[in-house]
Amino acid sequence: MSADLPRADSFAEDALLAHIHTTVAGAEHVVVGPGDDMAVIKVNGGELLAAKDLLVEGRHFLGTASMAQIGRKAVTRNISDVAAMAAKPVAILAACVLPRSITQACAQELVDAISRTAAHFGAPLIGGDTCVHVANGPLTISVTVLAQPLDGVKPILRSGARAGDHIFVTGALGGSLQPDGGGHHFTFEPRLAESHALARLLGANVHAMMDLSDGLARDGARFAQASALQAVIVAEQLPCTPACVKAHTQVNAWRGALGDGEDYELLFAVAAGVKVPATIGPNNTPLTCIGSLQALPGTNSEALICMHNQKVVDVSQLGLWHNT
Amino acid sequence: MSADLPRADSFAEDALLAHIHTTVAGAEHVVVGPGDDMAVIKVNGGELLAAKDLLVEGRHFLGTASMAQIGRKAVTRNISDVAAMAAKPVAILAACVLPRSITQACAQELVDAISRTAAHFGAPLIGGDTCVHVANGPLTISVTVLAQPLDGVKPILRSGARAGDHIFVTGALGGSLQPDGGGHHFTFEPRLAESHALARLLGANVHAMMDLSDGLARDGARFAQASALQAVIVAEQLPCTPACVKAHTQVNAWRGALGDGEDYELLFAVAAGVKVPATIGPNNTPLTCIGSLQALPGTNSEALICMHNQKVVDVSQLGLWHNT
Repeated sequence: MSADLPRADSFAEDALLAHIHTTVAGAEHVVVGPGDDMAVIKVNGGELLAAKDLLVEGRHFLGTASMAQIGRKAVTRNISDVAAMAAKPVAILAACVLPRSITQACAQELVDAISRTAAHFGAPLIGGDTCVHVANGPLTISVTVLAQPLDGVKPILRSGARAGDHIFVTGALGGSLQPDGGGHHFTFEPRLAESHALARLLGANVHAMMDLSDGLARDGARFAQASALQAVIVAEQLPCTPACVKAHTQVNAWRGALGDGEDYELLFAVAAGVKVPATIGPNNTPLTCIGSLQALPGTNSEALICMHNQKVVDVSQLGLWHNT
Repeated sequence: MSADLPRADSFAEDALLAHIHTTVAGAEHVVVGPGDDMAVIKVNGGELLAAKDLLVEGRHFLGTASMAQIGRKAVTRNISDVAAMAAKPVAILAACVLPRSITQACAQELVDAISRTAAHFGAPLIGGDTCVHVANGPLTISVTVLAQPLDGVKPILRSGARAGDHIFVTGALGGSLQPDGGGHHFTFEPRLAESHALARLLGANVHAMMDLSDGLARDGARFAQASALQAVIVAEQLPCTPACVKAHTQVNAWRGALGDGEDYELLFAVAAGVKVPATIGPNNTPLTCIGSLQALPGTNSEALICMHNQKVVDVSQLGLWHNT
């Protein structure tokens, strides 16, 4: 997120998440608990996936955004989580806390955009809640998405990568946020078709997958951590969007690809030696190898290192870590 | 909700909900869409129930509440929805937008309370999201609860009541909010055991059920509307809590029972002639007949009328309609 859309203190957020992960009690019907893109539980003898994301004014969009943009993003952010698991969306629920100043027409535009986008992805809006802020407060939307495994495809987890795996991304990275608050983060197409095609083509050779929202520098580290490995990213191999090149210049575009965030592309690990096509899906979305995973050299090693001009460069401050 | 916890403009909220109900596209796997206490969808050849509620500072609790109270209520509000369907909770997801001033310790207390309460009801916390407000903003929590039908029991819908049915409530009503912001709305036990016992004892003779959160005057009208009937409530029959009597005096306690809200008791319709026990469940919770349902006298008739001293009294302003 750019400087005009500040983020929570990463200490607070990451420490809180770590606390949640360690204190949640296991249960027999919980296959995957907190920490992956979606949770997986056993229901009626099969698996059900569930995820819940927030969209808050000032944090995930600016006050200048339209209700159509906001409602669409509230849903597509969650559909991107479904893509990350190679699953199939089945329903959404939405809860909206509305500013006191909102008009009836705007509120209806918002729910229409949520409902329309949800239906487009085969996940009808089945319920939720609304209320109006008592005093001043930002427009806040929480969407829950429910999904089922694709026929014959096990959900692909964030963990499961192995040393030696190659790391790939779909599409191109960086430049998602325009200075006016618009840009790719409102218009992105969740990589659902690409994810399904990958799972069908490569099967169990896709060892791990997640979607990128906080920037490759941050999410790539989480990705490697989930499998207790180290990601080695090669800056020169990073595919950058034209907006990224424009914002950072050609020479520095790789920094934008690592740090800008809000990409909603897929990051996935494939067994070494497996042939990965150059493009995938109905729109021939590019697939690019950007590095590999290796065993952690030591217990205190960085989870992600980045090579630039064949030297390790410090990218630990990139991504949405410290933009409070 | 009392005057110190103002509610959204009822026009905006009800009109928005009506808009959502009319614009949501149907889908084959959606058994019950928006408008009931929970949605019901078909998953893996069986049924799955889902609901999502909001808890917003100033609206559902005051700033003086403890994290333990807030976290508990965020979950029990949703478990009350599960009780209203006579279903069994299986998992929850929680999303929290935290005020900038919150400490790490407070945030952890909040998620601990959510997690502990969820586990207590057999619905482990499986996922969610957190972020911190960019500027000033109230603590906001959205909880999604997933549930499954009880073995051999079809979910009991809000609709399904018939003319002639008797209307019952569990427990007692009114006085839920103390002047200091505390009270029953933080400590209530969702009527899960009572609901299951009722469904098992009376089976399909329980025609319709919902939980009471906005006050009987408002929720009773919604209950009757869901079956296109008119509810006739007898003021003298309303069971009132001691707190309700204390707040409104013995003579006027019935008004508190209709209007105070945040009761989280069950309202249900039983076929006439069916014997309903005086108490139900492991704690011998009282069941009280408070009126009946009849055919709507005309298309513009009130959905709920209240008899007091054998005369119709206007209660349309009671409940959480106009406390903006």
